Amino acid sequence: MNYAPRPDEACFLLGEVLHATSRLNALPGFSEVDDALQKQVLDEAATFVADIIAPSNREGDEVGCRLVDGAVRTPPGFKEAYRQFVAAGWPALSAAQEDGGQGLPTVLEAILYEWMSAANHGLTMAPGLLHGAYECLRHHGSDDLKQRYLPKIASGEWLATMCLTEAHAGSDLGQVRTRAALQADGSHHVTGGKIFISGGDHDLTDNIVHLVLCRLADAPAGPKGLSLVLVPKRLPDGALNTVQCERIEEKMGLHGSPTCVLRFDDATGWLIGEPHRGLAAMFVMMNAARLHVALQGIGLLDAAWQKADTYAHDRRQMRAPGAVPTSRGAESADLIAEHPAIRRVLLTQRAWIDGARLIAYRTALQLDVARHDADPTVRERAQRWCSLVTPVLKAACTQQAFQGASECLQVFGGHGYVREWGVEQIVRDARVTMIYEGTNEIQAIDLLVRKVMPDAGAGMSRALLELRDELDASREIDADVQRRLAQLRYLTTTIAMSTAADPSLPYEVADDYLRVVMIVMLAWAWARIGHAAPDHARWQEPAAAFRRWVLPEFDMRLGMVKRACEERSASGTVAA
Amino acid sequence: MNYAPRPDEACFLLGEVLHATSRLNALPGFSEVDDALQKQVLDEAATFVADIIAPSNREGDEVGCRLVDGAVRTPPGFKEAYRQFVAAGWPALSAAQEDGGQGLPTVLEAILYEWMSAANHGLTMAPGLLHGAYECLRHHGSDDLKQRYLPKIASGEWLATMCLTEAHAGSDLGQVRTRAALQADGSHHVTGGKIFISGGDHDLTDNIVHLVLCRLADAPAGPKGLSLVLVPKRLPDGALNTVQCERIEEKMGLHGSPTCVLRFDDATGWLIGEPHRGLAAMFVMMNAARLHVALQGIGLLDAAWQKADTYAHDRRQMRAPGAVPTSRGAESADLIAEHPAIRRVLLTQRAWIDGARLIAYRTALQLDVARHDADPTVRERAQRWCSLVTPVLKAACTQQAFQGASECLQVFGGHGYVREWGVEQIVRDARVTMIYEGTNEIQAIDLLVRKVMPDAGAGMSRALLELRDELDASREIDADVQRRLAQLRYLTTTIAMSTAADPSLPYEVADDYLRVVMIVMLAWAWARIGHAAPDHARWQEPAAAFRRWVLPEFDMRLGMVKRACEERSASGTVAA
Repeated sequence: MNYAPRPDEACFLLGEVLHATSRLNALPGFSEVDDALQKQVLDEAATFVADIIAPSNREGDEVGCRLVDGAVRTPPGFKEAYRQFVAAGWPALSAAQEDGGQGLPTVLEAILYEWMSAANHGLTMAPGLLHGAYECLRHHGSDDLKQRYLPKIASGEWLATMCLTEAHAGSDLGQVRTRAALQADGSHHVTGGKIFISGGDHDLTDNIVHLVLCRLADAPAGPKGLSLVLVPKRLPDGALNTVQCERIEEKMGLHGSPTCVLRFDDATGWLIGEPHRGLAAMFVMMNAARLHVALQGIGLLDAAWQKADTYAHDRRQMRAPGAVPTSRGAESADLIAEHPAIRRVLLTQRAWIDGARLIAYRTALQLDVARHDADPTVRERAQRWCSLVTPVLKAACTQQAFQGASECLQVFGGHGYVREWGVEQIVRDARVTMIYEGTNEIQAIDLLVRKVMPDAGAGMSRALLELRDELDASREIDADVQRRLAQLRYLTTTIAMSTAADPSLPYEVADDYLRVVMIVMLAWAWARIGHAAPDHARWQEPAAAFRRWVLPEFDMRLGMVKRACEERSASGTVAA
Repeated sequence: MNYAPRPDEACFLLGEVLHATSRLNALPGFSEVDDALQKQVLDEAATFVADIIAPSNREGDEVGCRLVDGAVRTPPGFKEAYRQFVAAGWPALSAAQEDGGQGLPTVLEAILYEWMSAANHGLTMAPGLLHGAYECLRHHGSDDLKQRYLPKIASGEWLATMCLTEAHAGSDLGQVRTRAALQADGSHHVTGGKIFISGGDHDLTDNIVHLVLCRLADAPAGPKGLSLVLVPKRLPDGALNTVQCERIEEKMGLHGSPTCVLRFDDATGWLIGEPHRGLAAMFVMMNAARLHVALQGIGLLDAAWQKADTYAHDRRQMRAPGAVPTSRGAESADLIAEHPAIRRVLLTQRAWIDGARLIAYRTALQLDVARHDADPTVRERAQRWCSLVTPVLKAACTQQAFQGASECLQVFGGHGYVREWGVEQIVRDARVTMIYEGTNEIQAIDLLVRKVMPDAGAGMSRALLELRDELDASREIDADVQRRLAQLRYLTTTIAMSTAADPSLPYEVADDYLRVVMIVMLAWAWARIGHAAPDHARWQEPAAAFRRWVLPEFDMRLGMVKRACEERSASGTVAA
């Protein structure tokens, strides 16, 4: 079975829980984005994903990408699916109208990509960086570069890559060695090797726009000496540039996306933004990309859930405890969906999918606010939310994608371990999301060390107060969430104080802290969903599953972090 | 890098912590099994595993098994490695001397198989069922069958399979439909289809002995109507039997082991044991097999750990917080082994590997006691331990194998997701151990519903008291473990009481209960290791990691089970 998006459920979360329309209508340019328009876009997206994107997913895995005579061939069906994606205008959904885009909110694009990733992760990798490259070029590119490349990228006619990693420089981009030499005509010649370049070569588009992190001749050492250079596969005169795909990696999964080793030999390119300020320009791309990765995780988990739920309502094995005998009819065994262990798997994953979706859609809405609101204070608040919550979503949703998809595989028993049902592909594909766009460990450090600690938790505290204020303390569940939000604020202060004694502390507790934040946000999400849908079993059952099987982790992680802080105080460690 | 067993560490756990020699020497037949003999066997086993078993692991994954003209071809190197395995006498390590075996303790064989699985899971599947088939035939086979098959199985000259699963009958063996028809000469003709048969066909041995679960003509419905029939691939006159390998499965991993769909068409076989008592005979095989699966999990996790540990001590990325600048030398970045997130992964997995090893080796020793002790009371106590602890080890060690190997993959960043380093193979291979020999959910039900609840927890309580009595209450850590053992005993009683109100309760909490048992046993293991090696960083660092990062799950799961019990009491649910 292929993935089938549920636009009705997305509309419920956007409309009934997040009140997206009133938020969007307040922004310049989105005054006409009403419920009906959102529904129309999402209905069309769902049909497109199911009909055009999903069908080639299996062949993407089994046939995969191949390097033939130095050029990458994508799996059967990918080229035609991508052609239709461009023809229908989906790449330009949230691009500005002056660049040929449709000027729709980011949140709708986010949902589109979530569904596409769920349906066909490998194929969706290809346009996955388009929007980031568009924003990067739009904000940092020269007029000349924008004129030549921005419309083609906005429309998806040309695809783009991010060329960061080198063999010796992964998480540590300060070690990048690729060089750029200024030429008399103002262009640069780029020389060096890059690895792990998704879509570094392919046959989906005529040209590929590489955004390459490299070093100018006079660059200082370390991350502050990096510049960003645009290097096209094909030069403006139509000739091929000197960029060579040397190899594609044999990976655990994601065979539909070519992971390339690229060699640049005096390849011609043009600087984007200021010299030595490449990392800043690239971070525009990376932040948007990280939210997309979180949505990939949510989508992949939903895809695994759909398969497991369908199987569990078809397969019969043994008697389920507590099942009512009269409802069994002539069958000698009960549906495995009735067995408690299977029910728990299915409901727990739904608790994650729906709760994480709400936080992710709220974050995508905040991206729209951060980009468009007239009030700089409001923009700044929205930006703070995105900055804090994006690493949390990226790490937690991708971890759950892998572990939850593995639990969905378990629902199939031995049948889950063989290719036939497609669920093992999801487990393999999902694994990479915990690594790329910054490993999950880097996300945790980004959150706690780089974002929460510098102002001793003040910004995080304000974000948590926003959440508190949207709850209704007269409801028991909401009051419980408010109590936990207060615990988290107190924990944040405790870490800040203990860090004064031992600066390495936040590195030690970063992963646990990130989990605490995610669990409390999920608790908030389920309280809010409970307001909007008080009597629906569809939403009440995962809400109960969340409280029973997910929420207990909150106290456990909180205790782990507190103990680490107490140890520092007790041992009287002093900063070096 | 290939897996390198550590016989010194196994000898430490056996000798210093478990005092294996004095336990073994008290058993008839093992009076000469001293420290030196154990060391000699394990040293030889380690060399054999590293030199002969490990080298073909990668090709086992990449080339895999192939079905050519109805016959399975194993990957390059497997046939020769298996030939040497037989030639060196390893299959007969713990078989009785009268059957041509070496008559050594089960615990040594268990360690041998752990290492073999770590080094080459796919190849090790082939002889993995040999000992179980040997025990099954030895205890239940007729003299005629034993004479014809037992020596060949003991020596590994012929390999064996367990044919249980059918397409519609996985966890639910009561639905098995394969038929056996009695013939005039006393043989049976077997007809039906079996799936997921590991080693159902291969080229490693001339003959394959299938033990087939099937139904006689007069069999009652359900699991009490199953009989066990021995069906050889090749009949005594040398002719091929009518057993056909129709397909081998395309799996997520474990490509070195052919997972066969077998078709029996009036295939000739002979009954093992009593008619309709096939499950009882087969359970002899399955219990031993389940401990082996737990050891596979431990071995695979150790293999992933060895790779990650090596990589972490070679790869440099960024500055580690708290690292002493003077120790850095000329390097511009620190070893990733110095970064807290990586240290945590490596130490946490060691805490699992070493702790679980101790429990598994203790269980293997108890198998020796259960088989050989002169005192029936002692045998019964040992049997109780094995019966209770085997499902706990099977579920917990295989789950940790998959999740822990995935954490080890994470140490490599993007390099872990590509084939080159071999760690992603371990994640794929390990996944199946959570499924076969009874899914982990079935193990949890086996533990709580079938083994703990029938005597209201009395047997479990006695097993926990055994553990308590081996601790030294004057040590703080031991006293903490004793407190937790008491909490678990109380929890067991609470479940038993609440089950009277709602018989489906134990099914709901079985997974959490199993985790509580495993964590407390690990706590016990680390307390015992602490006694034997008080000052070694090698053992003290994982001990600290265990208390910091693994032990907190105890309180969380305990709380989850308690709340479920309280809900039953509060809601006053009454048994149907």
